Amino acid sequence: MTAYRKYDFPVSKIRRFLEPGPVVLVSSAWKGQTNIMTMAWHTVMEFSPSLIGCMITAANHSYEMIRKSKECVINIPELELAEIVAGIGNTSGAEIDKFEEFGLTAAPSTKVGAPLIKECYANFECEVVDSRLLKKYNFFILEVVKAHAPKTPKYPRTIHYRGDGIFMVSGETLNLKKFFKKENL
Amino acid sequence: MTAYRKYDFPVSKIRRFLEPGPVVLVSSAWKGQTNIMTMAWHTVMEFSPSLIGCMITAANHSYEMIRKSKECVINIPELELAEIVAGIGNTSGAEIDKFEEFGLTAAPSTKVGAPLIKECYANFECEVVDSRLLKKYNFFILEVVKAHAPKTPKYPRTIHYRGDGIFMVSGETLNLKKFFKKENL
Repeated sequence: MTAYRKYDFPVSKIRRFLEPGPVVLVSSAWKGQTNIMTMAWHTVMEFSPSLIGCMITAANHSYEMIRKSKECVINIPELELAEIVAGIGNTSGAEIDKFEEFGLTAAPSTKVGAPLIKECYANFECEVVDSRLLKKYNFFILEVVKAHAPKTPKYPRTIHYRGDGIFMVSGETLNLKKFFKKENL
Repeated sequence: MTAYRKYDFPVSKIRRFLEPGPVVLVSSAWKGQTNIMTMAWHTVMEFSPSLIGCMITAANHSYEMIRKSKECVINIPELELAEIVAGIGNTSGAEIDKFEEFGLTAAPSTKVGAPLIKECYANFECEVVDSRLLKKYNFFILEVVKAHAPKTPKYPRTIHYRGDGIFMVSGETLNLKKFFKKENL
């Protein structure tokens, strides 16, 4: 698998990777156990502070781990990890150690207790900052407190879920800068 | 521009189009005026009821129109509309009539007062069902009450925003059904 050298990435600019809507892997830790889940119901909510909203079904083993630790890491997998991403989404951390089962490396984070997934393109360390929509919608509001990404490639080759086991793979880049006002760039 | 014949689409299945994270056009109506805005900060939140969460900056002319009418339509533009999508995102409905300016057709919705954009691939009529995150995050929770989509193509060619005037175009389809448990399909 590709091993990128990663650098500090400005947390206010992570929309570059999340706004296109890729499936992400969420890693968490609680009481000595780690876990990974697949997630696609997320949205950027603010640049600064760098906020992300995401829906995690309470039936997920990760739900209580994230709710209790108030931390997680959002990892961006590329196409080469697609089968692993599907596998992670179809197993439970209550039964297996997902890092071990899927041959992924748990690397230490710098600001949260949850581990980074080394094999992913980028890693965003997050703290839970608002839980008020948990009860009704299982919706977490997270703040990205530290981001790690490689300098090249500038854009990852991500996968995007359509339901029914079908994914869309990210395609070509389109530059429409000339249609933008300066203040919107 | 492509003119699809559209059919009723199950509102519980619109994740097929929204979950991959495309830029959408949001149309609204209030006191005889219509408007369109470009939006990319949205996420699916539930299948049934069919819920979508989305962040709309209060500075947008559409913000008050949607807040007051409690309705809007989420329209999925395809690649051929990319320049228009950028144009809509870089102009204000306070100054121009966007349907007229960009040569788009406002077609009647069946359940809400906001118009559909005929030239888009699909149209989701929405009602605002939860406003409690508006004050702090400008975050609307919408319920899709009626959806319109063509039978073919099954998947639209969407555009996905990376910031800085750069878009990603949706690419190939990847079938990973064999890695899924039956109950997850």
